[in-house]
Amino acid sequence: MVPSGHAQLGHPIRLLGMPSLRVALAQTHPVVGDFQANTAGLLAACRNAYDQGAQVVVAGELALSGYPIEDLALRDTFLAAGTRSAQMFAQKLAETGMADLVVVVGHPSGPHPTLTTPFTPTHPQRAKNVVSVCHGGDIVATYAKHHLPNYGVFDEFRTFVPGTDNLIVRIGGVDCGVIICEDLWRDDGPIQTLTGYPIGLLLVPNASPFERDKDEVRLPLVTRRATSMKTTVCYTNIVGGQDDLVFDGDSMVVGPGGELLARSPQFIDHLIVVDCDVLSADEATPLPPNTRLVDVPARSITDPPALPPTIAPALDDNDQLWQALVLGLRDYVEKNGFRSVILGLSGGIDSAVCAALAVDALGQDRVVGVSMPSVHSSDHSRNDAANLAERLGITYRVEPIADLVSPFDQQLGLTDLAAENVQARVRGVILMSLSNTDGHLVLTTGNKTELAVGYSTIYGDSVGGYAPIKDVPKMLVWELARWRNQVAEKRGVTAPIPPNSIDKPPSAELRPGQLDQDSLPDYAVLDAILDLFIVKGLDVPDIVQEGFDEETVKTVVTLVDRAEWKRRQGAIGPRISSVAFGRDRRLPVTARRTPPEGG
Amino acid sequence: MVPSGHAQLGHPIRLLGMPSLRVALAQTHPVVGDFQANTAGLLAACRNAYDQGAQVVVAGELALSGYPIEDLALRDTFLAAGTRSAQMFAQKLAETGMADLVVVVGHPSGPHPTLTTPFTPTHPQRAKNVVSVCHGGDIVATYAKHHLPNYGVFDEFRTFVPGTDNLIVRIGGVDCGVIICEDLWRDDGPIQTLTGYPIGLLLVPNASPFERDKDEVRLPLVTRRATSMKTTVCYTNIVGGQDDLVFDGDSMVVGPGGELLARSPQFIDHLIVVDCDVLSADEATPLPPNTRLVDVPARSITDPPALPPTIAPALDDNDQLWQALVLGLRDYVEKNGFRSVILGLSGGIDSAVCAALAVDALGQDRVVGVSMPSVHSSDHSRNDAANLAERLGITYRVEPIADLVSPFDQQLGLTDLAAENVQARVRGVILMSLSNTDGHLVLTTGNKTELAVGYSTIYGDSVGGYAPIKDVPKMLVWELARWRNQVAEKRGVTAPIPPNSIDKPPSAELRPGQLDQDSLPDYAVLDAILDLFIVKGLDVPDIVQEGFDEETVKTVVTLVDRAEWKRRQGAIGPRISSVAFGRDRRLPVTARRTPPEGG
Repeated sequence: MVPSGHAQLGHPIRLLGMPSLRVALAQTHPVVGDFQANTAGLLAACRNAYDQGAQVVVAGELALSGYPIEDLALRDTFLAAGTRSAQMFAQKLAETGMADLVVVVGHPSGPHPTLTTPFTPTHPQRAKNVVSVCHGGDIVATYAKHHLPNYGVFDEFRTFVPGTDNLIVRIGGVDCGVIICEDLWRDDGPIQTLTGYPIGLLLVPNASPFERDKDEVRLPLVTRRATSMKTTVCYTNIVGGQDDLVFDGDSMVVGPGGELLARSPQFIDHLIVVDCDVLSADEATPLPPNTRLVDVPARSITDPPALPPTIAPALDDNDQLWQALVLGLRDYVEKNGFRSVILGLSGGIDSAVCAALAVDALGQDRVVGVSMPSVHSSDHSRNDAANLAERLGITYRVEPIADLVSPFDQQLGLTDLAAENVQARVRGVILMSLSNTDGHLVLTTGNKTELAVGYSTIYGDSVGGYAPIKDVPKMLVWELARWRNQVAEKRGVTAPIPPNSIDKPPSAELRPGQLDQDSLPDYAVLDAILDLFIVKGLDVPDIVQEGFDEETVKTVVTLVDRAEWKRRQGAIGPRISSVAFGRDRRLPVTARRTPPEGG
Repeated sequence: MVPSGHAQLGHPIRLLGMPSLRVALAQTHPVVGDFQANTAGLLAACRNAYDQGAQVVVAGELALSGYPIEDLALRDTFLAAGTRSAQMFAQKLAETGMADLVVVVGHPSGPHPTLTTPFTPTHPQRAKNVVSVCHGGDIVATYAKHHLPNYGVFDEFRTFVPGTDNLIVRIGGVDCGVIICEDLWRDDGPIQTLTGYPIGLLLVPNASPFERDKDEVRLPLVTRRATSMKTTVCYTNIVGGQDDLVFDGDSMVVGPGGELLARSPQFIDHLIVVDCDVLSADEATPLPPNTRLVDVPARSITDPPALPPTIAPALDDNDQLWQALVLGLRDYVEKNGFRSVILGLSGGIDSAVCAALAVDALGQDRVVGVSMPSVHSSDHSRNDAANLAERLGITYRVEPIADLVSPFDQQLGLTDLAAENVQARVRGVILMSLSNTDGHLVLTTGNKTELAVGYSTIYGDSVGGYAPIKDVPKMLVWELARWRNQVAEKRGVTAPIPPNSIDKPPSAELRPGQLDQDSLPDYAVLDAILDLFIVKGLDVPDIVQEGFDEETVKTVVTLVDRAEWKRRQGAIGPRISSVAFGRDRRLPVTARRTPPEGG
């Protein structure tokens, strides 16, 4: 049933003689499964928006459940909680005096009685990824996402049933299209259906994870949709770290002329409230196919408060990367209830950057650094580690490993690789023992380059629950270190990272005089090859075409393929590239590289 | 172009006045990515079939590339190799005198010039999961799988583009439908399209992983299709371990009356050759929609050799489970090029069963057992470990841990949990050191129950590249141990597992007098709850409904949820249940269990 003919129950604010709606974008910070806290957070944002005269609030995709919910979508109890959370949220809005506010909020929904797929091993999906439109204490309409991303880090075809119907909510006489995230990226489906129909606003809840340069893709996309559909696009994203994903927010409003009307800062909770000039609904235009129209009044605002403009300045690249790493780490620690973190400080660049990130994420009082020198550790390593701890003001302890390592060497007669690795493993045991004693989360400090080529000791330097720089290639580790020090210097405070840790040649120091570059190609070359292989998805012939030495390329690719088993056992860490190790890149451990007939 | 009117170029063998085709099912043992070896193996099977007068050979799904290929499907080089491998295979058949044999073989294919999806992050899939029909030195037809499983362990919607066309190959005047694996399980799509059309054979290449009781599902499914479609179904499955999956074969032929005509033994390479009475093609019946008909002659056999009947007896449940575990372990070791395995022997049941599996998989000369007694180890533990090694005839060494543990305790002042865990971690360092020294693959001996509730020390007893019983719940570990000993006794050889390891109460022996049941519910109760929660997918209220104590259920479920981070860092092991830990069950580490409003 489509109510109609009373579109003017509420009176949209009029500016410059054109109808206008005051719209809020609630960039909230959900925790997966924490319906209670997520609802409370969104209610607070709605209160704030309401007090600023907002008539419509757009929240993020799955804002009530958090995102991604992965196989929790297959649990009936979780889905029931998802549906119920939206009903309770709508009720709560009304109970707290916001019954006349229209809120578009994402949540999982199901199992639907109308859904014809019963639970079977071959058809486990019964959930939908929906947004509900809340008004008057109730849910007045629900839209299910059509395009379910099932590539990269996304598994939505596994967990959800796609929607088939389109939704237009007529709010105070203004037709607003509602779609979800991936629907905006795809030319077919709802975008195609709604294009040509005169919608005043396109409301788009998103859960769009951060990756390098993603802001440079999102704004042009939103702008393209706004101009081609001749409408204002309200794009709300969530914020926060969730396991290996970091959601950066970057919510925005773009008008039909392509003008950026508002943009949230990245990486923090934020609320945009903005007046959008809109077209009134044209009742003469027939509805697009498979489209439901739901009519709700807009709240009448007699004396709307003035709004400050909100266009957050774009952050430079390194700033974005650093903040993504900080937020990912902080949220992993906080959401999993750890009081503090502990990490080994080698004097090298990786542990220095991890420690600096930890202090930026948690404060110096919640970070413990442990220097674990061996007989092969140089004086500069010990000094650099101590200097780092002093610059950061963190708790610092020294646990020499000689007396712990030599019993292994003696009892087992270890030499060569085994003798090198046992040092790293003894350090792992020390960190885990201190974690068991004091409850710290252990951070593992490996970078993406090491993980790629397997240049680490499994159960040694790889121990830990979280890997802050696992998606940061070595060259970028150095760049971020320099950048972070420059930021400190500009602020007139102590640079966190000892310059010597940045400048000296990298070494694992597991044998006398060892340098990384003795066994690996130059890091600049290595990282360039790895980027082509892992992020760009090129294989050997195409990488060689880019100007790299064939033998080097083959060596690197072989190292990467052979290290797959180690990566499978690696810790979670924040994804900042378009292809991180983990759910982004799913490869067999057992696999040969042979062309047919060896040809 | 559909050739027609010369369907009688080859003369099908006639038995009992009805046309007949001699069909072979090649249950081969591919390695992912090893196109060369996979092609050679299949050619050998074809040679064997040819010599027995076979006119048609049906190989497995992706038999030339191995299965699953995961994100290798996104690599152009891999796809090019997949397509080329099929062309070379067809050529090779002709070159070796088998040009008149019709072979239906699976391989990945793409990127297709006709495929309109260019590579973009949102549309990475360009591959198809196909079978090609080889005849006369060429590929005469190709069918792409319609139904792409994307649940449980399967990610095919991520990696493949679905097919849209149906294929009927008229072989010597007999219409043969061709579909792939999941297509057979689904009522819609090709099954629906082909039902009613008079096909003489339905040829179905599969890559169907083993799980408990799966044989009890497959045969009824194949039978149902055969009877409802009034045709003979030729169901070929691959065999072998591939990371966490074990393919068990169980290839079969079922006639239109539901009669089982042939069935391969599970877990080994095998070739069925069987005469199938078939309907001749009825050219009056119009083709089903979207269906291509390709006409090839059948090889003419004047004096076909007699065939022995092949209906392998069904294995009992424990036999199947044991063989699946053995095959998974053997193939992980062999395909990854390890000469030997090493594992800790505690005297307990888990390590005893793992050692017995390793000997069954690799032989006693390739298995090294290490007893690593501590001050808390009982005499019976040491004796049981030594007794196990003696029964199995494996290399055995004893490495007491006291002198390795006490330096940690002293230097770090460890007590309680930290002091318990350091023992397990020192054992992990010993095993990894011996692995580094001698090149052994380390086996980790944790069972599914331990993994579920996190009853293990990460980087301690969890170290290893392969976990032979990770999908075996504790109660089943005991059952399999008893079963394996009975098999030995029936054969009149030494039972591999010391009875005392089976009968004594389980203990981690990390502190004096410790027993598992001090901190865990009774294993019978625990395993029953875990089965309902993990395998059956029930949540707390439904499990309580089944008659379990609510507090116990909540405790168990909380333990499972909290151990997710440990499982993420766990080793690969063979899947034998319908929901194993790993790719089957994808849950966030960071997640809260709160209903909306805490209600």
